[in-house]
Formats: sequence, structure tokens, C-alpha cells
Amino acid sequence: MTGFRAPPPLVTRSIEHHSFPSMNDISRHIDPGLIDRFAAIVGDKYALRDQQDIAPYLTERRGLWHGRTALVLRPGSVDEVSRIMQLATETGTPVVPQSGNTGLVGAQVPDTSGRQIVLSLSRLNRIREVDVLSNTATVEAGVILQTLQEAADAADRLFPLSLAAQGSCQIGGNLSSNAGGTGVLAYGNARELCLGVEVVLPTGEVFDDLRKLKKDNTGYDLKNLFIGAEGTLGVITAAVLKLFPKPKGREVAFAGLSSPEAALSLLSLAMDHAGAALTAFELIGQRPYDFTLLHAPGVVRPLSGDWPWYVLMQISSGRSAQDARTLIEEVLSAGLEQEIVGDAVIAASIAQGDAFWNFRELLPEAQKPEGASIKHDISVPVAAIPRFIEKAAGAVQSVSPGAREVCFGHMGDGNLHYNISRPIGGDDEAFLGLYHAMNKAVHDVVRSLHGSISAEHGIGQLKRDELIATAPPMAIELMRRVKTAFDPAGIMNPGKVI
Amino acid sequence: MTGFRAPPPLVTRSIEHHSFPSMNDISRHIDPGLIDRFAAIVGDKYALRDQQDIAPYLTERRGLWHGRTALVLRPGSVDEVSRIMQLATETGTPVVPQSGNTGLVGAQVPDTSGRQIVLSLSRLNRIREVDVLSNTATVEAGVILQTLQEAADAADRLFPLSLAAQGSCQIGGNLSSNAGGTGVLAYGNARELCLGVEVVLPTGEVFDDLRKLKKDNTGYDLKNLFIGAEGTLGVITAAVLKLFPKPKGREVAFAGLSSPEAALSLLSLAMDHAGAALTAFELIGQRPYDFTLLHAPGVVRPLSGDWPWYVLMQISSGRSAQDARTLIEEVLSAGLEQEIVGDAVIAASIAQGDAFWNFRELLPEAQKPEGASIKHDISVPVAAIPRFIEKAAGAVQSVSPGAREVCFGHMGDGNLHYNISRPIGGDDEAFLGLYHAMNKAVHDVVRSLHGSISAEHGIGQLKRDELIATAPPMAIELMRRVKTAFDPAGIMNPGKVI
Repeated sequence: MTGFRAPPPLVTRSIEHHSFPSMNDISRHIDPGLIDRFAAIVGDKYALRDQQDIAPYLTERRGLWHGRTALVLRPGSVDEVSRIMQLATETGTPVVPQSGNTGLVGAQVPDTSGRQIVLSLSRLNRIREVDVLSNTATVEAGVILQTLQEAADAADRLFPLSLAAQGSCQIGGNLSSNAGGTGVLAYGNARELCLGVEVVLPTGEVFDDLRKLKKDNTGYDLKNLFIGAEGTLGVITAAVLKLFPKPKGREVAFAGLSSPEAALSLLSLAMDHAGAALTAFELIGQRPYDFTLLHAPGVVRPLSGDWPWYVLMQISSGRSAQDARTLIEEVLSAGLEQEIVGDAVIAASIAQGDAFWNFRELLPEAQKPEGASIKHDISVPVAAIPRFIEKAAGAVQSVSPGAREVCFGHMGDGNLHYNISRPIGGDDEAFLGLYHAMNKAVHDVVRSLHGSISAEHGIGQLKRDELIATAPPMAIELMRRVKTAFDPAGIMNPGKVI
Repeated sequence: MTGFRAPPPLVTRSIEHHSFPSMNDISRHIDPGLIDRFAAIVGDKYALRDQQDIAPYLTERRGLWHGRTALVLRPGSVDEVSRIMQLATETGTPVVPQSGNTGLVGAQVPDTSGRQIVLSLSRLNRIREVDVLSNTATVEAGVILQTLQEAADAADRLFPLSLAAQGSCQIGGNLSSNAGGTGVLAYGNARELCLGVEVVLPTGEVFDDLRKLKKDNTGYDLKNLFIGAEGTLGVITAAVLKLFPKPKGREVAFAGLSSPEAALSLLSLAMDHAGAALTAFELIGQRPYDFTLLHAPGVVRPLSGDWPWYVLMQISSGRSAQDARTLIEEVLSAGLEQEIVGDAVIAASIAQGDAFWNFRELLPEAQKPEGASIKHDISVPVAAIPRFIEKAAGAVQSVSPGAREVCFGHMGDGNLHYNISRPIGGDDEAFLGLYHAMNKAVHDVVRSLHGSISAEHGIGQLKRDELIATAPPMAIELMRRVKTAFDPAGIMNPGKVI
């Protein structure tokens, strides 16, 4: 088993095959009697000690993080979570909460010490209530995002959080990472979708704030501290989430444009025409577009001509299918007339709309055959997107001449996944050796534009050192005070975020 | 000068005339040399020591709170605020931040000890930037809300925060109290309208988080701790606020209904038809409606017939005036057809729409001639509004038979201003003597429905004791830890919130 490789290159590689360490090898780091005490809380069936059973909890899907543990606990109730944390506090045992294990920054993976135990929330998977009149759903941390989407749909409502991992990611992780995705433009991120939380604190005490209130000014905003804290302040066990009226019509279009400035103009135009009905505005550079045509089997070319930039735009209407159609036609007609848009296609069917989205979702995967890449998840003020793209390209070339910018993302939110593929014919390892220099170059541009080095994926292990080194010292100082105030013993997911 | 009357009856009364205390009387509580040091930071002109000059800062508009101080400081820059807080920390001087002084819970008024100094933010009144492409405004704490609304309007944008005090309340106070108002349904409260803050900490250090980012997952959500903290964690000196496309059409209607259940059905119908275009949904009981007809001079009767309940509904369209008209007609036609709505009038002109809003805004004032009243600012899950109204009426009558429920508010947010006027012919003082019993009776109903005892006005001095006594002990404990972590010396607006 390889240990934690710090800093890991941000590149997708196949997970290496590891031989499983013997029980003795791991359990020497944690007292067997203590393991028994933890196991007794959940029952033997749900206390995984066999390294073959444990293995799936120790790596994440990109294979960047490899942790070790002697014990994975799978509690079946909030009370069991509470008793686990109580024992953890009593014995000073560090606990790593994990739900769907789809996070991209290593927040959900234990370190390599063998001292940390994993607390899996996946058995807390009840949808406790869907309240159609209050437009809320009360769900447990282990509910899979797609399951909740389907439950909302069945109640003629929309739960708008939507992201690539929705078939396996779970609500606890969505909240702990303040998940973003493609619906943020119209509906906000996980934080804005959450009305109340239930949290087990490091001591095992339960903070029950599971309320359905749209307005509540009774003191400090504790809820938003736990959301986005990546399990470092407590364990979110349930939440009240907002539901919305289900759109009656949805239209998806692909547009070709000459520049990011044109895309920014189209965004303004679309917001002006469609307002809150504009439910997605994704920017795609020519390179990821071409990679997808080249490497994704069976994918259909959205536009006949070639353009330097593309936009995938979605408009949803609460009124009717025809209304969505009229709106998107108006926006694109105006765009063509004002020479903002070069060419555009509106999906002729639901299937074609889904195909456009499928094209968008294949972008990251289609980058892999082009060799090693270094990725960034950045945001800047929306108006600064064109400047970012221009300045970052210069920075990238100064670090690695010939490196290829692969730029796409949620432009409506000012959020780009700005990935860099190695130069054509270049060496993967040599390029990955530039990881730090490339990060610094791109993030310096982000900082010069008052942006964020982690727009939606979080900090976890991946960006912790950089956050501490580059954030305003006062922000770090205040975060440390919060951490100490909530987790004085430092047992909640240590080594993550701060 | 009367001291702090705890607990004050929540009733509007004229402010009594007070003789001003002599300088000696007050300044014995704070060292004159220290006053000079504070004054030197802002200059003598902006350091008010004369009790006549100070008086407006010591009471609020309802005259419930009467504080004392020897010094009001009016800094002209963030640097001056910083130096004031540095000196306050060095000398252990408690500081009460104040902006527009329109708060309803006494958060902005010093106590009667004479030891606290007032820090007025009203000279920090620059709109630093309006960024039309990013849809943001960067403004200082002392900017009057209406001034910002007008600046946004001039840039063809909407700043949607809207409340009765908008002509005098200031952004610093709006954020510190997480202000609500009539626009929350479509646009959210102050917290949801804010992207970044600049805060001077108790030590004088500046936490600069003035960013325009829609997505930023780099650690704990510090911003939302300061918003709604009523100046107890630091002094908000500036903020980045969201702007929105300006609606192209607005329609206002008044509907008469038979019950709160019918109003709930109409709300569902309106959300289903209009979605985010539904920008206000205000419930008005027959009694406040009749009080307004009776006591507000020159007010025009919105509907010809009498109904047990009324709804003021507003629909705003980003598309066109005609579109808003069509939408509101559709909603009301469906409501009439489904026998949810008894009668309805759509404002025939902008002037009539304004008159409908004026009617709504006169409700609190029109209650005064009916004698003493005890007020509540509560929220429950939207679906629980009818049950709240039914149960609370029973609770009120058990405390004071014949007392008159005056119920109106932001039904779309689950937020009611549930006020109780004394029985006809009853004695004001005797009724106000029931303040605690009435509060408890109404708030017990709120708590049984998992609601909030302060939906939008905050805690301040008014509800501090009740919050501490009735909130889940764990919530209080966590809030205290936050307070201690951010303000260990306890000099930031002590005696408020927690």
C-alpha cells in the first residue's frame, strides 16, 4: 500500500493494485479493545475490520488518496453516531466521516497513520419527510442525491442540486462540501438549498436545528458553519432541504462564439431576457470540445461549424414547454442579431437536449487520452472571466510552453474548471513535476482578480497547505478559532481544511 | 432619564421628555483622558460629547430603549474604525455599533451603565462600486438602503431588499440584523443578498472578505457569522451585495379569502404559475384591514366587500409589463375558478399598486389608536401557518379574553407579525402587564410548530433572556463558544443576542 503522497498531482490515473496489509499491521495503531468497544455500538455486521471490506473506503475514485484504518463503522441511527462520537471523545480517537466517497479533495479519506477510524453515514438513508406545501424535504446524510431528486419528482417538485456524481454521492457529503454543480445559477449551491441541519458534535451531543423556516433571526448562523466544513466541526446526520416547483418546459441550446467576451455578453442578454428561468450557462473552450469529439465514442457534434468558444445554455419555464421554447429563441435571435452569437442550435427533442448535456459531462473524461493534466477549480467575479482566461493562458505558457489550456465550466457562476493538458508529445511525469509551479501561476492570476482557488470542490487535504499559506492570515486565524471552539480535542476529521 | 426598562412592553408609545444629564453625571463612568484619546482618532467634530448631540443615538424610534453614553464616535474611514477598536481592546471599553438606528430589538442602543461608547457608521456612506456585468454593488455600512436602491435603479438593476424603514435604515444594520422585508420570497434575506463583507474585529484588525464570488469553498463560512450577529462579533464596515435584472413589469393585486387555508392554496397556485416571478405574498387579517380603513386618513378601500382574510400579491416579470399582467390574471382566474379566492382586484395603474402597498405599510400604525398592544415577529413552516393562526388565537384568549389578534405578514416566508391589541375598553397598563404571559403563550405555540420567535427583527436586548431560556441548550452553548472565540474580551456590543 502506498502512503499519502503529498502533494498529489491532480491527474486522473488508474488506481494501482495493492496487497492488503495484515490486521496486525494496521491494528497496532489502535487498541483492539477499543475497536471492540466501537464495534459493539453498531454491531459486528456493521463494524468492518477486514481490510478487503475496508478497502473501498480508503481510496477515492481518482486514486489520489490512499488512507489506512483498522475500522470502518456503519451506524444505522443518529443515536449510534452519537455514541460513537462520545466514545471517540472519551478515548481521543480521530474520526473521518464519509458518505458517498465522491469528493475530489481527499476530505473523506483517512490519513495513513492507521489511528483514524472511518464513520460511514451511508446507512442513514431515510427520506424522513417530503412536505409539499412547505416545499421541503427532510433527509438523512446517507441518502443518494439522485434518490432525493427522484423523490422530489414523484411529489411534483424539483430538488435542483445536480452534479456528475449524483448517482452515488450522498446528501451528507453534498452539504459538508457545500456542493455546487450545474444548477447553482438559478437555485444556489448546497448552502442556499438547506434550511436546517441535524449535527452530531465531537462530544456526541446532538445539535438539532432541523427546521423548515425561511426566516429565523435567533442568533448566530451555526448551520452555515457546518455546511462546507468537510466534517471538521461535526457530523451532519440529516438536513431540511428546499424543494421547488417542477419546470413545465426545458430547452437546451448549443451556441458557437468568437470569444469569452461574447459569452459574457450572451450571459447578460440571457439574464436580461430570461431572469431566473436561465437555469444553466456553461462555457466550453474549443479544445475540450474537440477532445470530446475525438475521444468520446458515439458522441454527436452539437454544431456543424468550428468556433473558438461554445456555450451550453438551458432555459426552464415554470409555465409551459412552449414558453421555454419562446424564451430561448428570443435570447438566441437577439444574440445572432447583435452578432454576439456566431451559430446556435436548439435541441429538437428531449433526447437531443440530454445529448447536449451528455457532451458537457464527458468533457473531463475526454481529456484523459491527451495525457497528464493539472486541474484547477477556480472562480472569479463573472465580469472578470475573459480577463482570467487571457491572463491565465499567459501564465500557463510561461510555466510550460506548449501546454494546452482545457477551459470549461459554470460561467454563470464565475466558476471555471481550468485544466492544463501536457504539451503534445510531452512527458507525463515531467509535466506533473510542474504541478506546484503551474498551480501557483494559475492561482496567482486568480488571486490578482480577487477570486477563489476552490470554487466548488473544497479544500480537504489537497489544498490545505495552499489555503493556509495564501489566504488572508486573519481568515485562517478566525477559522482556527472556530475549529478550536467546536472541536477542542481535534478529533473531527483532523488534517482537513485547516 | 429613565433607565433600561427590562422587560419592556412591546408597544408603541410616545417617547417621554427627558432632561439631559450633566456631563459629570455621565463621564464619571469613563475616564475623561480616555474620551480624549478616542476623540483624537476621529477629530473633535466627529466625537460627540454634548448630551444634546448624543440624545438621538440613545433611544430608538419606538422609545422602548433608553441608553446612556459619554461619547458617540463618528469615524470617516475604515482605518478610523480600526483604531477605535484597537483602543477599545487596549482599554477594555465596550463599543456599541450603530448605523441607521431603526432596529426594533434594542441591539443598537447602549445600556444604562454609561460605560459603553457608541460607534456610528453613518459617515461610511460611499457606494464604492456598482459592477453591472458582475451584478454586484460594493457599499459601505452607512449607505442608506434607499440610496442603494436608487443607485441600482440608475444602473438598470434592482437591489431587492425592501422594508418600511428603507429611507433611513443603513446597510450595516441591514446586514447585522439579517434584514428581511417584503422581497424575501423571491430574492432572499440580507444574508442571501450578500457575497462578501469587510469587518473590523474587536482588536481593530480588518477581516477583508470583500469578494464578488458566487462560489467559494475555501473553508468555513465566516461571512454568515457576522451577518445577523447584531454587532456582537465585529463591526461590518462594507459589503458586496447582489444586484438583479430590473423587472420590466409589476402587477399588484388584492384578494379576499375565506380562511388561512385558502391563502395557503392561493400561495401554492401562485408559485406554481409564476415561480420566481411571485415577488410578494402578504397575508392580512380582517382586523388589521378594518383598523386601517378606520384609522388611516385618506386610505382607499382595496376591495368593495368584506372578507375574513386578504392577500396582497405582487408579480414581477423580467420580460414585459404585459407578461406580468397575464401572469397575475391567470393566477387570480384560477383562484376564483377553484373557489380559493372570493374576490380580487388587480391594480389598474402604478399609482393604485402603490396605494395597495401603502395600505399594507400602514397596518402597524393603524393599530395604535386601538390601544396597547403586544407584538410578535414569528415564523413557522409555511404549511403550518393556518394551524399557527388557529392555535395561537386560543392561546391568546386564554391569557386575555377579548384581546384582539391583529395578524398580518409575509406569508410566503412563513413569517407573521402577530400582534395582540387589548380588549375593547380594556386598560392599557393592565394589558401590558400580561406581556410575559402573552409572549409565552404565543411563543409556546410557535415552538410546538418548530418555528422561530424572531423571524426577522433579531434578538438584541428584547429577546435575549427568552432566547437563552428557551433555545436548545446546545445552540446557546455553540453561540457562546463563537462569541468567546471572536470577542474574548467581551467588548463588542455586550448584553445583546447572547
